[in-house]
Amino acid sequence: MINVTVYNEFLHERNNSAIAAIYPDGIHMCIKRFLETEDDISVSTVCVDDVAEKLTDEALKHTDVLIWWDHMAHERVPDEVAKRVQTAVLCGMGMIFLHSGHHSKPFRLLMGTTCNLTWREDGDFERVWVVKPAHPIAKGIGRFIYLEHEETYGEPFDVPEPDETVFVGGYERGEVFRSGLCYKRGNGKIFYFQPGHESFPTYKNPAVQTVIKNAVRWAKPDYRVDALVCPHVTIPDNG
Amino acid sequence: MINVTVYNEFLHERNNSAIAAIYPDGIHMCIKRFLETEDDISVSTVCVDDVAEKLTDEALKHTDVLIWWDHMAHERVPDEVAKRVQTAVLCGMGMIFLHSGHHSKPFRLLMGTTCNLTWREDGDFERVWVVKPAHPIAKGIGRFIYLEHEETYGEPFDVPEPDETVFVGGYERGEVFRSGLCYKRGNGKIFYFQPGHESFPTYKNPAVQTVIKNAVRWAKPDYRVDALVCPHVTIPDNG
Amino acid sequence: MINVTVYNEFLHERNNSAIAAIYPDGIHMCIKRFLETEDDISVSTVCVDDVAEKLTDEALKHTDVLIWWDHMAHERVPDEVAKRVQTAVLCGMGMIFLHSGHHSKPFRLLMGTTCNLTWREDGDFERVWVVKPAHPIAKGIGRFIYLEHEETYGEPFDVPEPDETVFVGGYERGEVFRSGLCYKRGNGKIFYFQPGHESFPTYKNPAVQTVIKNAVRWAKPDYRVDALVCPHVTIPDNG
Amino acid sequence: MINVTVYNEFLHERNNSAIAAIYPDGIHMCIKRFLETEDDISVSTVCVDDVAEKLTDEALKHTDVLIWWDHMAHERVPDEVAKRVQTAVLCGMGMIFLHSGHHSKPFRLLMGTTCNLTWREDGDFERVWVVKPAHPIAKGIGRFIYLEHEETYGEPFDVPEPDETVFVGGYERGEVFRSGLCYKRGNGKIFYFQPGHESFPTYKNPAVQTVIKNAVRWAKPDYRVDALVCPHVTIPDNG
Repeated sequence: MINVTVYNEFLHERNNSAIAAIYPDGIHMCIKRFLETEDDISVSTVCVDDVAEKLTDEALKHTDVLIWWDHMAHERVPDEVAKRVQTAVLCGMGMIFLHSGHHSKPFRLLMGTTCNLTWREDGDFERVWVVKPAHPIAKGIGRFIYLEHEETYGEPFDVPEPDETVFVGGYERGEVFRSGLCYKRGNGKIFYFQPGHESFPTYKNPAVQTVIKNAVRWAKPDYRVDALVCPHVTIPDNG
Repeated sequence: MINVTVYNEFLHERNNSAIAAIYPDGIHMCIKRFLETEDDISVSTVCVDDVAEKLTDEALKHTDVLIWWDHMAHERVPDEVAKRVQTAVLCGMGMIFLHSGHHSKPFRLLMGTTCNLTWREDGDFERVWVVKPAHPIAKGIGRFIYLEHEETYGEPFDVPEPDETVFVGGYERGEVFRSGLCYKRGNGKIFYFQPGHESFPTYKNPAVQTVIKNAVRWAKPDYRVDALVCPHVTIPDNG
Repeated sequence: MINVTVYNEFLHERNNSAIAAIYPDGIHMCIKRFLETEDDISVSTVCVDDVAEKLTDEALKHTDVLIWWDHMAHERVPDEVAKRVQTAVLCGMGMIFLHSGHHSKPFRLLMGTTCNLTWREDGDFERVWVVKPAHPIAKGIGRFIYLEHEETYGEPFDVPEPDETVFVGGYERGEVFRSGLCYKRGNGKIFYFQPGHESFPTYKNPAVQTVIKNAVRWAKPDYRVDALVCPHVTIPDNG
Repeated sequence: MINVTVYNEFLHERNNSAIAAIYPDGIHMCIKRFLETEDDISVSTVCVDDVAEKLTDEALKHTDVLIWWDHMAHERVPDEVAKRVQTAVLCGMGMIFLHSGHHSKPFRLLMGTTCNLTWREDGDFERVWVVKPAHPIAKGIGRFIYLEHEETYGEPFDVPEPDETVFVGGYERGEVFRSGLCYKRGNGKIFYFQPGHESFPTYKNPAVQTVIKNAVRWAKPDYRVDALVCPHVTIPDNG
């Protein structure tokens, strides 16, 4: 069983009736539901109101893959929680950052850069093109995913050169964006996936759901440590 | 002085009057002319008719940067010339592959992959977006280069994960393509740049010219060897 | 079941009695035996005498992972066989190159570089250090593998910057060498592993065997195509 | 003129007479002196006592390359100074981290990992091997640099996969360590270089000095921005 925790700040859906109409019980519940159609995935959820209380070291230790969506309340995630998440990834936990999670505290801590980009909201359609058909995260996706409306994200995306670029998005009226990126940091695996603006039902798209399921399986740890150390060692012997 | 050699097969321009109208004396002469507006660049040219005779080891030794455009006559470049070019790059020569040079023999030898892509010719416009504004090859380019018409190249582009992705192109009716890619191989630097279909006056575009000038300066060797060796060594002493 | 094919030229073991004493029926049979202690691995072998006949497209299509050891007879592998192997990797087949396979034809084709290095044979011990403890290929290995005697390989190793450096070796009297390197090329995965000089019983070392078993599982394809194409496409619709 | 600032905490040299005997006026002054033998380099210095006061945004804006050495007082560098340095790098400033600077606050911020390693102090000699002879930072160095005594650093070194591995060190009694690593982050270039334990006169070694001079020239910015932004953009036009 892969233990997934979904963090969603859960504010837009409570503050805006149009968004509530799409995700009545929140983006996190939508993600939980489609992930739990898989027999090997079990999902817990956390929202901004209880993030400090629920996202403890203990909870992270029992999380195989943490999925992260936030947007208007990056700052309400306490610094110590963000560092805890960073540490959990370096210990081996898998992590998936969705959409505006590019500006979340843990993503910025893990990347070491601003993670800035350019953006506009004009209801453009997007095609998310597969760049690496053999990558396990692209399994089951054809040449591209078509999304009728998405927020437009554009380059330059200020992240370290990715280990692998799996998807590149192209938008109706112009921009392109490296929209599916893999990183290894410490013992953990990280996947950034751009689709998922709150105003559109992106997470109901079957191909988007497939990508997130694939990413969960790709990111789950098969090696994990309890603590990160910088050990004083002795002259090696050859036993 | 940077010694540049431009290889252009020079067939389309002689076989097709519409193309001849754009490049009357060939793509190579167009490139030669705009490069030679720079005081520090000197240009020789080679075409498919004389490639075996002119692209000798000696000529390559005196070439700092080789620019390569071919399309319909990849097979007319003899294997031994392609290997000679590969060896020159590994010794330290810089190299720029343009457009359909993605399928040239030397590019495939250096990449080790098919360099396949998807393509269509519908006269789409292209925007070539800057992904790495600080890269010397992007110097002087704004957010993107607009090309009124280009052949559409699409992903997946079967090349090794690049050292750096400098540009990503987006086309009018859909596709995206990693259109400016940097590689180091052996002691040499390689830049692949997608714009330049023979039917359009792409190499007359000032921004495209800037990119190629920048790439010449980036690729020129500051370290170069005469031969590639696999030496038998002795136990190191510490002198 | 993972179908592994082991190619070993099988010349040293027939020509030199000291080497025959270590590997009486050849390095390939030693590798076959330890791999087949695993329930999910099945092994065929090929030697230089029958490489052209046995390593057909059909045989490669049924090979999940090809392991390659050669040294004195690189040139006896026909060019078309080497290209066939390259193509199979780009289609998705996994591949493990051992020791002097760094100079094999298929490795050079896939890397695009000389794969030169420096070398000496002084019976030095080697420690193969784990650089990425979380990598699946390092699973079950402690800080390092100790090998009582190995041929010394030294830097510079003329290969493309690897996707991941899993091991770095250090030798008794000096040199260091990036000794475990991962590459993705096309749809396939490639692992280069330096230990395995024919004069020493390296492939009888349990930790070396563990690495090779791990590498087989890591390299086996979960995506594979029958042919490599550069398709002409049409304007994308959004069905 | 390349404006270099050298930060050295300057504590060991004041607290320990053996170290003071090597670097009477501090490691920073030793580095300043050898850098200033070059006509195109000008050096300022900062120590831990005045780091908050001197390493202002203004000072960083006028610094082309910041060199960083600290060890026992990482925590005395205020968080806001470390963030200021990180921001300056992302804006384009070059940065060189020396030796125990692997655990400095700015390096950890920029890498996003712990930067842990293994270590021991047994007075081993080290050979710093050149892995990429064509890299400008290795210019003028032969096969390796011999250092009679260095602190031993060992793998695993918990840093992101480097853009380029220029040097790998090997120590007398065993360990290996990726000792010269290049990264690009944002608009800036970063070089980590392992030699330089305070107890040994490493920075008086001419080859070490050459590496640091080379790294200064490699890291100096040719593109730099004043501020890091995430701009709201409009639908692109093609002017």
